[in-house]
Amino acid sequence: MADLTLMSELARPNGSKMVLLVMDGLGGLPLTPEGKTELETAHTPHMDRLAREGSTGLHIPIAPGVTPGSGPAHLALFSYNPVRYEVGRGVLETLGIGFDLQPQDVAARGNFCTMDEEGRIIDRRAGRISTEECIRLTRKLQERTHLPGVEIFVLPVKEHRFALVLRGEGLSDKLSETDPLVTGKPPLPVRPLEDTPEARRTAELVNQWIAQAREVLKDEPRANCLNLRGWGKDPQLPQFTQIYRVKAGAIAVYPMYRGVARLVGMELLSHGSSIEEEFAALKAHWDAYDFFFLHVKPTDSRGEDGDFQAKVQVIEEVDRHVGELMELKPDVLLITGDHATPAKLRSHSWHPVPFLLWAENAMPDGAQAFGERECAKGYYSVLPAPHLVPLMMGHAGRLSRFGA
Amino acid sequence: MADLTLMSELARPNGSKMVLLVMDGLGGLPLTPEGKTELETAHTPHMDRLAREGSTGLHIPIAPGVTPGSGPAHLALFSYNPVRYEVGRGVLETLGIGFDLQPQDVAARGNFCTMDEEGRIIDRRAGRISTEECIRLTRKLQERTHLPGVEIFVLPVKEHRFALVLRGEGLSDKLSETDPLVTGKPPLPVRPLEDTPEARRTAELVNQWIAQAREVLKDEPRANCLNLRGWGKDPQLPQFTQIYRVKAGAIAVYPMYRGVARLVGMELLSHGSSIEEEFAALKAHWDAYDFFFLHVKPTDSRGEDGDFQAKVQVIEEVDRHVGELMELKPDVLLITGDHATPAKLRSHSWHPVPFLLWAENAMPDGAQAFGERECAKGYYSVLPAPHLVPLMMGHAGRLSRFGA
Repeated sequence: MADLTLMSELARPNGSKMVLLVMDGLGGLPLTPEGKTELETAHTPHMDRLAREGSTGLHIPIAPGVTPGSGPAHLALFSYNPVRYEVGRGVLETLGIGFDLQPQDVAARGNFCTMDEEGRIIDRRAGRISTEECIRLTRKLQERTHLPGVEIFVLPVKEHRFALVLRGEGLSDKLSETDPLVTGKPPLPVRPLEDTPEARRTAELVNQWIAQAREVLKDEPRANCLNLRGWGKDPQLPQFTQIYRVKAGAIAVYPMYRGVARLVGMELLSHGSSIEEEFAALKAHWDAYDFFFLHVKPTDSRGEDGDFQAKVQVIEEVDRHVGELMELKPDVLLITGDHATPAKLRSHSWHPVPFLLWAENAMPDGAQAFGERECAKGYYSVLPAPHLVPLMMGHAGRLSRFGA
Repeated sequence: MADLTLMSELARPNGSKMVLLVMDGLGGLPLTPEGKTELETAHTPHMDRLAREGSTGLHIPIAPGVTPGSGPAHLALFSYNPVRYEVGRGVLETLGIGFDLQPQDVAARGNFCTMDEEGRIIDRRAGRISTEECIRLTRKLQERTHLPGVEIFVLPVKEHRFALVLRGEGLSDKLSETDPLVTGKPPLPVRPLEDTPEARRTAELVNQWIAQAREVLKDEPRANCLNLRGWGKDPQLPQFTQIYRVKAGAIAVYPMYRGVARLVGMELLSHGSSIEEEFAALKAHWDAYDFFFLHVKPTDSRGEDGDFQAKVQVIEEVDRHVGELMELKPDVLLITGDHATPAKLRSHSWHPVPFLLWAENAMPDGAQAFGERECAKGYYSVLPAPHLVPLMMGHAGRLSRFGA
């Protein structure tokens, strides 16, 4: 694991520009033993050139054999130990939509769902209602639910997803989730996960709130019920910007990634939604920041769809923008994924993830292209993900010598 | 190191079948700088095919440069930190012969030896007496030795080797060994290794027992003396079967390996002694277990003999059985050694050990055969041994996603 104390002792500003380009779920698998992966298949002249000029390797996001969720995988890329700093999804989503989460706030991720007359969940996503519907429903809940001594925020996220934040003294996030995870069963009541007065009281308050919310929603045709998951508080992480003494900007479309970037102290730069708009935002903010995190989501989405060819096309689209990016003359560019999402598996996987590190003084390692098997032969072999940002900082000349 | 707490949180059963095939002392060295190792020399069409279809790498059993004993090397393969979980050899041998060791029992490994008239050891293995002799001698000792307040078990193991177990309240295993490790010197008295009443009392009791035992043995022509080594208690390891939620069966001939498997909660499946019988046992128990540990000893023995060609032949014999094993359709197969025993060195060595991981969704990494130098170029580079079982579990789909 990266030693963040050491990093904060060695880091020094020097005006260099660094880009961490993350294609979500980049890692892939060949469809047949002799075949190529998505990244190996994609025509990526710009990234191939950078791989030839720079150094390559594989990274392991969490631990060998462990399939990462996107939150911990990004914390690891940002150089945090993802097992030590476990962050509730509710916190990530709440931060991701720009809510100003306070240290004592308790946040959960919410899903609207559909319940039948016997109180059993028949659709865990309420027919994937529109975001407009979500806004209407959360507003209704915001107006008509109340708890003694607690301020409530019901925040729309996207489609059937919302966030719930409770603000008040002595609230606990040690709470169980209500989602039975299968259809045909009723939602579960919230239970305290530790035997403290705070956890017992918070569980009771949340159950009261759920009862009120179900009353408010009872005549909705689809979203007549809800589930709450991923309880958490702001974990007060050491700030990336302070550890590395950088001004860091994040360009990401999806709330979760925006959330995890904010959690470590990055500023959110873009409100666009296409890959093109994201790279345009990078260019627009180029002079004002030292470190850019640019997150591309569709590689993961197409992998989860099982659409090999569509994932290849997303990678090719990114490659075209990498050409423009190089015109900005970054000092250090690291291109990787947060985890693998092979189209073959239609899901995140545990496989190591290829990376390429381009910088003037990176060691060219003979890699001829950017791909899993080329990177496996690379200069950095297999590294834990938290070592990548320190490597970027070293190549940027931003870490002073350790010892005399 | 593998995080066993994390593993126990993520592990979930799914009905898949996994095999960990360990050829003891598999790793080798070429006899000349341009030569091939034992594994590279062996004709292994089945393992070569699996290497082409799967992923390869090297593992380091304990730490770089450290030559492993077989006990800690196996604990490491089973994903335990071998430095943290140090287990006395006496415990391993006692468990290996099927003795029901209790938590308070103190166990030692015993060797019969030959002493001259001046009390100096002249043969540390008593002329390698037969196992029948060993049984006769241990029975004699069992009948004729007694200690106040302590139950004694004198257990035959194999040839000149036996185990001693003391059962009673307040016994300590913090005791020195009696074996001077060279001939021409007398056995050493047992000393307490910590300054506690328990250690002092236990040392005194053991020295009393040794005096009685030497009296009982004094007219034996060869086994007229004994040494005691490897004191220990059951370390109460977290159980492999509980951590990974598997039903695990072990197939091993030698007591030590059977012992280390039992120590982590595996069931002992076989009482055969040939490699052929071991693979037959695997087939016979295939339906009843999730995880199989199959241990092949002669690779190590032939390495210790310095017989390069004989070690090659053992590997070739195993390869023929790997063909049959694949007919059982395992979901995940990992083939490796617990450490290197190069015939060139006639002993265990510190060299990294090749492994191959075969599973439907393993990344083919270009390895063309199973051998040290092919594996060194493999997808997993060099990993600590405790990461291998987590990798197996990941490939078996038995670890749930970490975080959202």
